Amino acid sequence: MARIVMKFGGTSVADLDRIRFVADRVAAEAERGNEVAVVVSAMAGATNRLVGWTQEMSVVHDAREYDAVVSSGEQVTAGLLAMALQQRGVSARSWLAWQLPLSTDGVHGAARIEQIDGSELVQRFADGQVAVIAGFQGLGPDNRITTLGRGGSDTTAVAIAAAVKADRCDIYTDVDGVYTADPRVVTSANKIDKITYEEMLELASQGAKVLQTRSVELAMNHRVRVQVRSSFSDAPGTLVVDEDEILEQAVVSGITYTSDEAKVTLRNVADRPGVAAAVFGPLADANVNVDMIVQSASPDGVHTDITFTVARGDLERTAQILDDRKQEVGYQQLMADGDVVKVSVIGVGMRSHAGVAQQMFQALSDRGINIQAISTSEIKISVLIAAEYTELAVRTLHAAYGLDAA
Amino acid sequence: MARIVMKFGGTSVADLDRIRFVADRVAAEAERGNEVAVVVSAMAGATNRLVGWTQEMSVVHDAREYDAVVSSGEQVTAGLLAMALQQRGVSARSWLAWQLPLSTDGVHGAARIEQIDGSELVQRFADGQVAVIAGFQGLGPDNRITTLGRGGSDTTAVAIAAAVKADRCDIYTDVDGVYTADPRVVTSANKIDKITYEEMLELASQGAKVLQTRSVELAMNHRVRVQVRSSFSDAPGTLVVDEDEILEQAVVSGITYTSDEAKVTLRNVADRPGVAAAVFGPLADANVNVDMIVQSASPDGVHTDITFTVARGDLERTAQILDDRKQEVGYQQLMADGDVVKVSVIGVGMRSHAGVAQQMFQALSDRGINIQAISTSEIKISVLIAAEYTELAVRTLHAAYGLDAA
Repeated sequence: MARIVMKFGGTSVADLDRIRFVADRVAAEAERGNEVAVVVSAMAGATNRLVGWTQEMSVVHDAREYDAVVSSGEQVTAGLLAMALQQRGVSARSWLAWQLPLSTDGVHGAARIEQIDGSELVQRFADGQVAVIAGFQGLGPDNRITTLGRGGSDTTAVAIAAAVKADRCDIYTDVDGVYTADPRVVTSANKIDKITYEEMLELASQGAKVLQTRSVELAMNHRVRVQVRSSFSDAPGTLVVDEDEILEQAVVSGITYTSDEAKVTLRNVADRPGVAAAVFGPLADANVNVDMIVQSASPDGVHTDITFTVARGDLERTAQILDDRKQEVGYQQLMADGDVVKVSVIGVGMRSHAGVAQQMFQALSDRGINIQAISTSEIKISVLIAAEYTELAVRTLHAAYGLDAA
Repeated sequence: MARIVMKFGGTSVADLDRIRFVADRVAAEAERGNEVAVVVSAMAGATNRLVGWTQEMSVVHDAREYDAVVSSGEQVTAGLLAMALQQRGVSARSWLAWQLPLSTDGVHGAARIEQIDGSELVQRFADGQVAVIAGFQGLGPDNRITTLGRGGSDTTAVAIAAAVKADRCDIYTDVDGVYTADPRVVTSANKIDKITYEEMLELASQGAKVLQTRSVELAMNHRVRVQVRSSFSDAPGTLVVDEDEILEQAVVSGITYTSDEAKVTLRNVADRPGVAAAVFGPLADANVNVDMIVQSASPDGVHTDITFTVARGDLERTAQILDDRKQEVGYQQLMADGDVVKVSVIGVGMRSHAGVAQQMFQALSDRGINIQAISTSEIKISVLIAAEYTELAVRTLHAAYGLDAA
């Protein structure tokens, strides 16, 4: 017997037939003697319709009213799934955030979970009752409904799992797990059986869309064992777990890429103290997130070039901000390039293995791919390259690190 | 300055444009310096869609889950209307039943309101904030959402008006008030300016569909002044008030008819004690509501005929029940007639005026309309006639009691 949280997204509960299908899966877990809580999203399309109404009603609207309107979608799914389970002879009831309560802070539209009272759920597990929980929603300190932001149901599921000390949190999606690379790019990509929280976090933030970054952070902080698996198959998916649980670490677990990057280069910046602050201070003030930064060695000791990346959506704003401060910063020319991608290799094994970065640079160099910027973390190396090389670079690195072998 | 509750039904908030139109009306009341609470139904069609889903999911379903699903419609309207008001510069917020709370008993799907805490609303009125309240829903003793049954938003509105001691509760509908007769039948029907609770109650239960019977009872018990008025015009509607407020009472206020009646006659029933119990006991046990009952004088002292009416939908069941007990009751023949209507004249003035019934019988007799059964209350006389005479009877009585004159 295990205590399991199951999470189904909008496409998995898109219509009554899909909800019945989900009920079958949940009933099967319950009939195996497991204690089950299910977290559901709104039926696919419902949230978009509700969000559309709020936008049509008023472009700048009260986030509290937005939350009241938009959270209704999950409420409907939870009630319908509870009914479907009951019809299968499974004891079940729906739970809304204010009923648990699942308490959040007061940031309507993007609230953070602060506390969950799971005691009632645990008590009812003992009576064999399945809890069907409306995802994405919370109860704010103002006694009003909050929402957790897009994709928040993943976060609800992990938080519920932490609150009831579940053995596992299964996130059902339309893919059957996490892959060593995007299978649309690398046909030899393999499903990863087990991956660490840290790697999953890097994968999530570096373009792998299977899990919300926030939910991985939460899982890591509370050591919740998360499984990413397919709604449409019984095959085990990818288990996201603590490093200790993985006996043999691959040096590199996966290759990702993000294409929503843009590169900005300031030519002939005065090479003096304070110039970095003059460039990046105003961007930070404007909430522009700067990722990679490269300052080339000054050839003459007087001028230098500064290259950095921002999200592509922020490129125009960035150029505007720096153009307004051209005198103040003191640069000759601003060059913007939206035609770049960031390719990353991720793996906790690289902590204990030297030469992982060198191997990356060499492999790319052998293919004639020029590296425009580099950034690294303890378990990740990212390089910025011209967009046209994306697929070639990902495939090259996938092979170079031995990930092609099944 | 007055404190006003405004209630808008599903067709009045059917889409975003209608909600904007409602917002204009509410804003106008607020800008006149009034304290305003608005009660809204779900957008027309929303409730039917949600109810349809619950039925499709499971024919016999958990009423608690039904309530969770179906109540979401009003939640959406309340949030959207609050947004629309804010956009017009009117301070407003949405309220769900569990937030007030509006407490009900635990009869999910058909709950009765037990208590409303209006203190927070009153406090916010003082700050100029309009309360937008989701109708139809309540909070049960089990801390779950209840619903009040179809048309329950009228009841919510009257109950809120009682709780905040409103000066008036305006029910906005697609007609501009209560008429002396159905204007589709009697072209000379007139809008009634003021009507008593008692009369409105009889009108509502005798076929006038403008107000839910329950909401009129509640208004009567708490002396809430209710106004039935049009969503599409500024003209005053019909005020439902205490008898004291109406200086000159009309003897008859209105003529109504209900066509969902059926007549049952048992021929040659043994005229002995206990026969009525033998007939009506089993019907009561089967929840068949019997309305008019006529027992003819026994011509031979041995046998008699018993005639009574039931709702047309109950006719088949009634015949079956009595057929099963033919020996026991001891009657010769059962005759059923679904082709009848009940026509009623209603007016508190008839308490103090003799001859009102006689006037009715004479007028119908003059037109050759045969009366098949009669029932009376203190302020109502109803007769059962053949359905083909419906319009003639209503028009005849409308003229006979002087209601044709504007």
